[in-house]
Amino acid sequence: MSLKFKNAKRIEGLDSNVWIEFTKLAADPSVVNLGQGLPDISPPVYVKEELSKISAIDNLNQYTRGFGHPSLVKALSCLYEKFYHNQINPNEEILVTVGAYGSLFNAIQGLIDEGDEVIVIVPFYDCYEPMVRMAGATPVFVPLRCKPVDGKTCSSSDWTLDPQELASKFNSKTKAIILNTPHNPLGKVYTKEELQVIADLCIKYDTLCISDEVYEWLVYTGNKHFKIATFPGMWERTITIGSAGKTFSVTGWKLGWSIGPKHLIKHLQTVQQNTVYTCATPLQEALAQAFWIDIKRMDDPECYFNSLPKELEVKRDRMVHLLESVGLKPIVPDGGYFIIADVSLLDVDLFDMKDSKEPYDYKFVKWMIKNKKLSAIPVSAFCNAETKSQFEKFVRFCFIKVSSLFYTFIMSFLLVYKAPLFFSC
Amino acid sequence: MSLKFKNAKRIEGLDSNVWIEFTKLAADPSVVNLGQGLPDISPPVYVKEELSKISAIDNLNQYTRGFGHPSLVKALSCLYEKFYHNQINPNEEILVTVGAYGSLFNAIQGLIDEGDEVIVIVPFYDCYEPMVRMAGATPVFVPLRCKPVDGKTCSSSDWTLDPQELASKFNSKTKAIILNTPHNPLGKVYTKEELQVIADLCIKYDTLCISDEVYEWLVYTGNKHFKIATFPGMWERTITIGSAGKTFSVTGWKLGWSIGPKHLIKHLQTVQQNTVYTCATPLQEALAQAFWIDIKRMDDPECYFNSLPKELEVKRDRMVHLLESVGLKPIVPDGGYFIIADVSLLDVDLFDMKDSKEPYDYKFVKWMIKNKKLSAIPVSAFCNAETKSQFEKFVRFCFIKVSSLFYTFIMSFLLVYKAPLFFSC
Ligand SMILES: Cc1ncc(COP(=O)(O)O)c(C=O)c1O
Ligand SMILES: Cc1ncc(COP(=O)(O)O)c(C=O)c1O
Repeated sequence: MSLKFKNAKRIEGLDSNVWIEFTKLAADPSVVNLGQGLPDISPPVYVKEELSKISAIDNLNQYTRGFGHPSLVKALSCLYEKFYHNQINPNEEILVTVGAYGSLFNAIQGLIDEGDEVIVIVPFYDCYEPMVRMAGATPVFVPLRCKPVDGKTCSSSDWTLDPQELASKFNSKTKAIILNTPHNPLGKVYTKEELQVIADLCIKYDTLCISDEVYEWLVYTGNKHFKIATFPGMWERTITIGSAGKTFSVTGWKLGWSIGPKHLIKHLQTVQQNTVYTCATPLQEALAQAFWIDIKRMDDPECYFNSLPKELEVKRDRMVHLLESVGLKPIVPDGGYFIIADVSLLDVDLFDMKDSKEPYDYKFVKWMIKNKKLSAIPVSAFCNAETKSQFEKFVRFCFIKVSSLFYTFIMSFLLVYKAPLFFSC
Repeated sequence: MSLKFKNAKRIEGLDSNVWIEFTKLAADPSVVNLGQGLPDISPPVYVKEELSKISAIDNLNQYTRGFGHPSLVKALSCLYEKFYHNQINPNEEILVTVGAYGSLFNAIQGLIDEGDEVIVIVPFYDCYEPMVRMAGATPVFVPLRCKPVDGKTCSSSDWTLDPQELASKFNSKTKAIILNTPHNPLGKVYTKEELQVIADLCIKYDTLCISDEVYEWLVYTGNKHFKIATFPGMWERTITIGSAGKTFSVTGWKLGWSIGPKHLIKHLQTVQQNTVYTCATPLQEALAQAFWIDIKRMDDPECYFNSLPKELEVKRDRMVHLLESVGLKPIVPDGGYFIIADVSLLDVDLFDMKDSKEPYDYKFVKWMIKNKKLSAIPVSAFCNAETKSQFEKFVRFCFIKVSSLFYTFIMSFLLVYKAPLFFSC
């Protein structure tokens, strides 16, 4: 075959993707999919209704401003000014993108050069590594490590960065660190103190911070989400990323945004104008309208930013009990809508899993899809090659699901396993 | 300011953009915008209604398959099989992208390496050049040249490539050529013979062809659109790009697609999964439904693929007469919804245009926005630096507009100018 039909070097080795692989495996309609982070609860009625109304308006079906539909950037600036305690220029300090994914891509392509180093905390949302590599940069990994918990139920807050270890990864080549709080897949919500350690290092080493905060509203009792961009000295070096899909449970809308100082956002804008140019107008207008509804009732428990975490906290607690009851050892998340669980003590016989080079969790999930008609995502998919073995006993479940799914889940397991109830994290 | 706040090298110098500049200038509501290719006719009712219906369906607001929503890739394969006279595998030979823009980007990033050469025909849809540069490759430009027309009305078919000149641009470093038919901004519809010349060179030099065919349905009486991918030896080396925005007059939906052999499309898929991952689900489903409606009546004059060009041909003819009547010399387009016109013989006094280094057409359009409250796009924006002077007497008008706009246009001009009616192209 012609050499010209080969991929460009920048995407060499970046073709495998856990979502594609496991979405395909879970496509069988008899499989209960607790894998991909895809709500099967209904999105708010007003969100859907706005889209329906807007679809009838001719000019809202045409191109809009490339860096963000005017009414949407206005709503976003109005919303986030409440948290930044500062004015946010809707045209120069906000960029609307194709999902948070698009914001991550724009930030990395716009700011990271070949030869740069980018610190990535393990486990990580899986696209961070290939995106950094596609920019010709080197990801430098640092793992979250679990403190000993002595038989107690383990919480995502037991997983922390070792400040010394983190500091050792910074050097003069470090261009950026990618932070994710609340964290996918762990559900960790970084504390103010933990963020301060990161901020101090960013400032000391003159490093950018790409802060992926797509689950910012989904924080459970006893925890609080902090924005690292609001820490002293951090605004000027931080891109904060949000997602409509996660904010309003409409992952299929693929709208996201980056917020940051003009001197950074302008480079993301340049990438945008040479990649997609503009995002879908009807979705942007509907999103703006949805934001206005909730911006006006932020202190009200009905506000979706308040009601969704309340609803999800109940599901989280239920999921914790279900997992424990079948001998899977969950790590209780403080935020987000995922829960990871140690599946190793189930000691499933994976003998018939041909491809023996795969990590344990890949094999376990394939076994579970086949034998239990349940799908999840292996946590080692969120790791670089070297740390996979540290995480391969964990599997990630998504709990933004209708109640009946939980029972299908548990019934499926209870019929077969009587697994031990307590073991260490 | 910190050095780390600088853009990555790959986007150096790629920040200026004609749409952003002229959209801003034309934003004044009193300006009649005949610039950006933005239909102000209504999109088909069924297209809008499909979106409205689908917005109410919960799971169609969630993530779908990354490489294209299943029902959409199926509709696309069914549609295009009629033209390729060959089966098209919906999952492996089609990729749904964020507009045709996204397809162009994915193709270029997925297939073009640093140091490659890419042939770009001038004038060109303006993103081709920065996209090629962002991939670290060198655009090699070859102009369309106008044959002498002896005082007759000039047509877009009078603009042709010189086969010798074109051949001279190919060499062992040539990775791809970007073709655009029907052409923006000229409206040229390449003939079978012209495309054969390009195909022969692609095969001789083992070169890829990126064929941007977003205006494929918009071809006027006496002309026919040919797909270079259907020429012998070309399928295996061609990516053909389409756009929902142009097909159904919903530019704000930002959905496009690439069609080609698996060995090429798979690299575009890799780019997609590391840039945006997936496109908006409700828009993809609505688009699929709209396609099914028109696929079932392709021979019917009511089919939008037939009715829209009929409607636009009337507008084209009207626009030609209007332009001629005010002394602007139009180049009659055989396809697309743009018309370019020679504005130089109006001999407008541009004395008060401060920034004297700008090409003539930039100054003319700025003058027209200010003095005539009419906007258009300077054609030199579609040229590389070296050929700008060849095209700077031309301005591009968009004619997918409601009738009243045409009259506003003409009235505005007639009040002031009595310009000569005949001059050479
Ligand atoms: C941490 C994190 N970042 C980004 C994304 C992508 O979000 P979007 O769908 O808005 O592109 C996800 C989606 O699961 C995520 O979990
Ligand atoms: C020739 C050409 N290619 C691509 C595009 C971009 O199309 P889309 O809006 O689908 O990204 C346009 C839009 O004007 C165009 O004229």
